[in-house]
Amino acid sequence: MAEQKLKKKDTLAMRHKLIGQSCRLFYSEDPVKIIRARGQYLFDESGKRYLDCISNVQHVGHCHPAVTKAAASQMDLLNANARFLHDNIVLYAERLASTLPEKLCVFYFVNSGSEANDLALRLAQQYTQHEDVIVLDHAYHGHLMSLIDISPYKFRKLTGQKDWVHVAPLPDTYRGQYGGDHPNPGQAYANTVKHLIEEIHMKGRKISAFFAESLPSVGGQIILPPGYSSKVAEYVHSAGGVFVADEVQTGFGRVGSHFWAFQLQGEEFCPDIVTMGKPMGNGHPLACVVTTQEIAGAFTANGVEYFNTFGGNPVSCAIGLAVLDVIEEEHLRENAVKVGAHLKDLLAQLQARHEVVGDVRGVGLFVGLELVTNRGEKTPATKTAAWVMKKLKEEDQICISTDGPWENVLKFKPPMCFSMDDAELVVQCIDRILTEIKTSDLKLENEDI
Amino acid sequence: MAEQKLKKKDTLAMRHKLIGQSCRLFYSEDPVKIIRARGQYLFDESGKRYLDCISNVQHVGHCHPAVTKAAASQMDLLNANARFLHDNIVLYAERLASTLPEKLCVFYFVNSGSEANDLALRLAQQYTQHEDVIVLDHAYHGHLMSLIDISPYKFRKLTGQKDWVHVAPLPDTYRGQYGGDHPNPGQAYANTVKHLIEEIHMKGRKISAFFAESLPSVGGQIILPPGYSSKVAEYVHSAGGVFVADEVQTGFGRVGSHFWAFQLQGEEFCPDIVTMGKPMGNGHPLACVVTTQEIAGAFTANGVEYFNTFGGNPVSCAIGLAVLDVIEEEHLRENAVKVGAHLKDLLAQLQARHEVVGDVRGVGLFVGLELVTNRGEKTPATKTAAWVMKKLKEEDQICISTDGPWENVLKFKPPMCFSMDDAELVVQCIDRILTEIKTSDLKLENEDI
Repeated sequence: MAEQKLKKKDTLAMRHKLIGQSCRLFYSEDPVKIIRARGQYLFDESGKRYLDCISNVQHVGHCHPAVTKAAASQMDLLNANARFLHDNIVLYAERLASTLPEKLCVFYFVNSGSEANDLALRLAQQYTQHEDVIVLDHAYHGHLMSLIDISPYKFRKLTGQKDWVHVAPLPDTYRGQYGGDHPNPGQAYANTVKHLIEEIHMKGRKISAFFAESLPSVGGQIILPPGYSSKVAEYVHSAGGVFVADEVQTGFGRVGSHFWAFQLQGEEFCPDIVTMGKPMGNGHPLACVVTTQEIAGAFTANGVEYFNTFGGNPVSCAIGLAVLDVIEEEHLRENAVKVGAHLKDLLAQLQARHEVVGDVRGVGLFVGLELVTNRGEKTPATKTAAWVMKKLKEEDQICISTDGPWENVLKFKPPMCFSMDDAELVVQCIDRILTEIKTSDLKLENEDI
Repeated sequence: MAEQKLKKKDTLAMRHKLIGQSCRLFYSEDPVKIIRARGQYLFDESGKRYLDCISNVQHVGHCHPAVTKAAASQMDLLNANARFLHDNIVLYAERLASTLPEKLCVFYFVNSGSEANDLALRLAQQYTQHEDVIVLDHAYHGHLMSLIDISPYKFRKLTGQKDWVHVAPLPDTYRGQYGGDHPNPGQAYANTVKHLIEEIHMKGRKISAFFAESLPSVGGQIILPPGYSSKVAEYVHSAGGVFVADEVQTGFGRVGSHFWAFQLQGEEFCPDIVTMGKPMGNGHPLACVVTTQEIAGAFTANGVEYFNTFGGNPVSCAIGLAVLDVIEEEHLRENAVKVGAHLKDLLAQLQARHEVVGDVRGVGLFVGLELVTNRGEKTPATKTAAWVMKKLKEEDQICISTDGPWENVLKFKPPMCFSMDDAELVVQCIDRILTEIKTSDLKLENEDI
């Protein structure tokens, strides 16, 4: 059984002293100390149980015994680097290939989504021999220097926008320029990329890549409108660039109906490069880039080795294979379809009862609840969202977090074993909290507005 | 027991098809398939045993049971991210702090040496508000875009040298401008950095960091001359920059006498930022940046969160702690001192018998044997080095590799449990191979020279 080694106040004091403060704690005013977890449940030092609605990394459930067993067996046998020939890396690549369109067939294994996105950028620039990159507004692609450059969410607060980076509007049909009532928002948003490419060409610059999450996460749990990606790919290809789908947050069946979120855009759409990460190793540092033979060939042709010390080692690949097995054996995609639909239904019922619920959107177990103080003007109800998050933790032991440019979207991205009961519990609790806000003297948003 | 799942030829065929060819195999003409390893020994699919002289990552020995046990226990309990409060990250930081000078006391945990060096660069630039970086010739600091920019070993073959990157001479007392017979090579090489800074200032540019491995590895297993780092730090600090010591290859007691290779430069020298990686998790993706409160404070002050999904998770930290325990309990630093000294003695005896041995250098279990066709002109004996490497593998089942700008340095960086017998065996075999070359008709170097 788990026991804490330090008293919570001592852990906290040491954390403040020894760990960079830029690495923030959840609930920083009153952090939670978690010492054990299983499935979708976290347990603190006193044994108190928390329902986890946010750990998308622990994809098949915290501490899944099949994953632990696979890791321990392989660690006991071999964990050398991928310069030695080994079965696991090729068997894992073959399994991943079976989930992807045929043309995505060359794999590079790395240790984090950030490493994957950095390599994707190198592959795109090497293949196209162009430099410029188009990204979506509010995007976040990782913590590395190269990725801060292509993440408006970060570069606006830091180094600013580089001349080789171009920002296209987020295709948000709730809050953006082209709403759900537009006859073809997919085409309309794709046209914004087309026009951006024309502007870039007028400057004498050339596009290497359009780089986007298949479902923009930090952007606020956004679902791309139908037809968007195919059209964007057409325009980007015409300009000599490639389409990079960042599936770090959204891959491995989270959307339920498909294994990859880019597949929601239809069978005729296929990215040129896909990056994957977070859920891939259920918490183990494991990530990947997959691309076409043509792009990989151009990367090889530069004659320079790519060596990633830990990437694709036998333990990482054994863990990756075990995660794929559990997704299949426990029918977790089917669970995501069923529980995700139920969660969205329940949230839609909340919307009918609470004016503050502006939008409910999502697919599978990737769901957002956007709060607004005014449905007409869609003014972000940022403080209400923060209040709900705080109350869920304090009163109900439910961990959820907020996202979106105004931090007014409550986001659900739980372990894939999240149950119907879990969905019902969390919606009941949100209902209670929103009702309390309405019926109390709490004036959360008015203080600043 | 280990069994292979595929026949070797099938593994190889799948590898060629599915894994990016830029990820090269050892002995690419006849790769080795390793399915099991223990201590300093690797075993192929037929059970044949190889002595491993190169796996510095598997620092306390391949598949050490104490490390596997720590990993499996923690994986079964919790592997959440570091936004939740947990004991392991703070206990591990405290243990690492006890090996370091007092002023290096704020830790950032990441997944690879590359991630660590990228973050170190961000910290240096944020703190100094300067951009430019001085690196040593032939240096390699990682595979990320930001690190290719500061790695002459890579950027010369790829994107070329950026205007904010400046290359100082490698302080190589065997082959460089100031030899071992110079009265003070440390000061002389430090002066080259001083002059470079003056040139940079004349261009109106400002130094953020001097970035160097504590013992340049890809540069050819170079030992920095005494006094070098203190003097460089003095000049870099005067210019408003910081000193980054890259200990990714050299840390965790490899040099035996000290825990960190930068400590070989004396107690009066302390870097401002230290990066660590490869040996830290014995194969698990684990790396770290440590810096001063002042530098960490400047990074926090920008107000932007640094979140690394897997960095500092409870499993990674449990593994890191187990590695530190094994280093102590099995007296691996003492072993590195003893076996390293014996290995160097034996190699010095080789040098007395074989003209082709130009230099023997090293400290602890970080040792290089430089081969030359002509001792006076120090012409690199690149083909001889490759031949020795090939023969050791084919005839003696010993894995060793070459390094240095001309790939003429045989390098030893074995797991730290490498024994006296292992050292004797490998030197005997090299002796035999060098004798065969002399007494046969083999004209390895003359073909091209």
